[in-house]
Amino acid sequence: MAKVPYKTYLTEKEIPQQWYNVRADMKEQHDPLLNPGTLKPLATEELYPIFCEELCKQEMDSTTRYFDIPGPVQDFYRMFRPSPLIRAYNLEKALDTPAKIYYKFEGNNTSGSHKLNAASAMAYYAKAQGLTSLATETGAGQWGTALSQACAFFGLDLTVFMVKVSFMQKPFRKGVMETYGAKVIASPSETTEVGRAILADDPATGGSLGCAISEAIELSMRDDKCRYALGSVLNQVLLHQSVIGLESKLAMEKIDEYPDIIVGCAGGGSNLGGLMAAFMQDKLTGKANSRFIAVEPASCPSFTRGKYAYDFCDTGKITPLARMYTLGSGFIPSANHAGGLRYHGMSPILSKLYHDGYIEAISVEQSKVFEAATLFCQREQILPAPESAHAIYGAVQEALKCKESGEAKTILFGLTGTGYFDMNAYMQYNDGTMTDHVPTDEDLQRGFESLPKVD
Amino acid sequence: MAKVPYKTYLTEKEIPQQWYNVRADMKEQHDPLLNPGTLKPLATEELYPIFCEELCKQEMDSTTRYFDIPGPVQDFYRMFRPSPLIRAYNLEKALDTPAKIYYKFEGNNTSGSHKLNAASAMAYYAKAQGLTSLATETGAGQWGTALSQACAFFGLDLTVFMVKVSFMQKPFRKGVMETYGAKVIASPSETTEVGRAILADDPATGGSLGCAISEAIELSMRDDKCRYALGSVLNQVLLHQSVIGLESKLAMEKIDEYPDIIVGCAGGGSNLGGLMAAFMQDKLTGKANSRFIAVEPASCPSFTRGKYAYDFCDTGKITPLARMYTLGSGFIPSANHAGGLRYHGMSPILSKLYHDGYIEAISVEQSKVFEAATLFCQREQILPAPESAHAIYGAVQEALKCKESGEAKTILFGLTGTGYFDMNAYMQYNDGTMTDHVPTDEDLQRGFESLPKVD
Repeated sequence: MAKVPYKTYLTEKEIPQQWYNVRADMKEQHDPLLNPGTLKPLATEELYPIFCEELCKQEMDSTTRYFDIPGPVQDFYRMFRPSPLIRAYNLEKALDTPAKIYYKFEGNNTSGSHKLNAASAMAYYAKAQGLTSLATETGAGQWGTALSQACAFFGLDLTVFMVKVSFMQKPFRKGVMETYGAKVIASPSETTEVGRAILADDPATGGSLGCAISEAIELSMRDDKCRYALGSVLNQVLLHQSVIGLESKLAMEKIDEYPDIIVGCAGGGSNLGGLMAAFMQDKLTGKANSRFIAVEPASCPSFTRGKYAYDFCDTGKITPLARMYTLGSGFIPSANHAGGLRYHGMSPILSKLYHDGYIEAISVEQSKVFEAATLFCQREQILPAPESAHAIYGAVQEALKCKESGEAKTILFGLTGTGYFDMNAYMQYNDGTMTDHVPTDEDLQRGFESLPKVD
Repeated sequence: MAKVPYKTYLTEKEIPQQWYNVRADMKEQHDPLLNPGTLKPLATEELYPIFCEELCKQEMDSTTRYFDIPGPVQDFYRMFRPSPLIRAYNLEKALDTPAKIYYKFEGNNTSGSHKLNAASAMAYYAKAQGLTSLATETGAGQWGTALSQACAFFGLDLTVFMVKVSFMQKPFRKGVMETYGAKVIASPSETTEVGRAILADDPATGGSLGCAISEAIELSMRDDKCRYALGSVLNQVLLHQSVIGLESKLAMEKIDEYPDIIVGCAGGGSNLGGLMAAFMQDKLTGKANSRFIAVEPASCPSFTRGKYAYDFCDTGKITPLARMYTLGSGFIPSANHAGGLRYHGMSPILSKLYHDGYIEAISVEQSKVFEAATLFCQREQILPAPESAHAIYGAVQEALKCKESGEAKTILFGLTGTGYFDMNAYMQYNDGTMTDHVPTDEDLQRGFESLPKVD
């Protein structure tokens, strides 16, 4: 067999024309969203004031296996997809491992991440519904950038609430979003009721994704032609991100490979959910038995130390309740945590799969993450986002186990993006001033106290 | 015929295995480099103290048409090449032009530019010669980043003198280079004699590429195991960058296209020289008659307002003399000029071709450049480097002429890189504080006074 190329690209015609909905193959579904007032399961129509109607339908549909990708979204995808499947020859060599390491690189676009897959779908559906604007939150900034790009393209106004600590760590992310015409506000802000309340409670807060979500929803509720958009956690997001895994699987078929182990970073679950879906289908239907490993930050350990419970998706407690692994909507990760993966909860789909034993999870301190990132960028020549470097760390651990055991396993990980806007964090790591923060049990207990009483 | 895809990729096997030396097809050669002491043509050996021996030979060789790319450099190329040839469907639509616009995008790598093509070759040759370190300069930062990456990979120490005004405009470029293990010094610095002399003369200077070059050469001369590396201007650089045009030509053949017009930004000439070489061969040998357009900043107009004269390649006047279009080695572009393209001279090869009428040139103020960049990034979804946006501007002008005339010309331009480290400049443009600076004739005269008396 010929040597596998460094990069395997699909042709443009091979880009998936349908998204895959993993729920259609799950033996059991996650518990339904609840109306926080009545604690009754939510009807699809109850979501219409928050999201576009098409997206609400996708959110609630657990039986349709494939959804057609609208033509304009397919055209948009062609500007930055297919993304390459890369064989990490030089990382393998550096680790001296018999493992074969592959990564699906989603960072070759201006958002610097996989987020554009869902952003373009949401902007398209909003425009098609006749809306004029969207509101959203962003943590590390990739999602806000992606939605800014998509809104510029489809012709929508956009307001982005950016978690204040990221806003400070990454001054130039704002510049990128503004270049695409978005309005960017540090969150919590004085522009919303929920923001003012949170600031009154703690004027020095660095903010959280949960808080920024509340602000964006509040803003979108003020205008009938505006809706809210969320870049992770939701079923609709995992649906749109399924292109990552569909492309990966097809590319691996072309080089006669199949992953024994699939590794993804996990914050809200958008990338891991998208990367794993097509392979999880094989596991759910008995065609394959890969291991799935979620890697999350030790400073925000929703899988590994959270509770599987109904919780609000936001800090202001205005969203429906979702059953998921959560640290409590009041949990705010330490301000020294660099980059994204700072959401208190986790995708309900991934939470259910984890709960049912289909997914494993580990957590890691950020100094080890940046150590893996540095090794990776010097060998593979791509400077990874801190989020993505969690997956690198996980893949390296598995490759080192293969070195011990002598097994030539095939490892696939998701390199979700690039770290070009994360240089403050890299510089801290380089000059030795980066610190780790692992919440104590008492820290976590304070977060759990914010959980609603449901069960 | 099927619709041309958005992106045309070569396969990995189709990446060129040889570089093309355009001098072998030029009817007349540029004048030789001169020893600045004797004013006699330089012997190859006289360059050995400055550059690796293989690179000196490439520098002086005007007859060898193709040079084999060493295996390790080919392997390195596979990490980031082939680069895509992209059809700018959405830009065409926005301009409502019958022109077909293509761009060769070299920015999908961590250096954010085409510079990695030459950096990897230089680092490889240095290692192969048994050297332990390199010294270089960087203006906008792409070259310094590229050489940092290549030195980390091949195992060499690197010192980068970064033009002080860029050092201030782009704080995070330093972080990237340091993550790859390079030592980064703002130039002019107190670490070299030439730096101290320039600072004594003008303590507030923002520096220039010419000055940073002097410092890097001085440093490299101190250590027998160190050599100097330059990312533009030189014949060896144009040779290594020829992969851009070779790939472009092959990709265009695949979609049955050939460019009527080829547009590139021009600072020292590395990208334009590399993009055009394979097409210039066709022009020189009578097989085609494309137009070649260089676009340079109005604030550093070496082609359009410079003199074709022998000059030093550096401010400290320690390099050989090259005959080229130059503003004088004492010329320093206005500090308000954003990004690169700030070199006082121009590649001797391109200078000769321009002088002989094979290339046209225009200059443009930076506010128009950022206007083109903004249109481009909102339509094509890639945020361009300011340097690259000069080429976008040039291509847009030609496409608009096609709109006037109704001609469906095929335009190819070089999108050399991304602007993720240029957000200070974008933010100035966005908030209306960006200013243009066009040097007066008196400004230029002061630069010309630094020209050596040769003829």
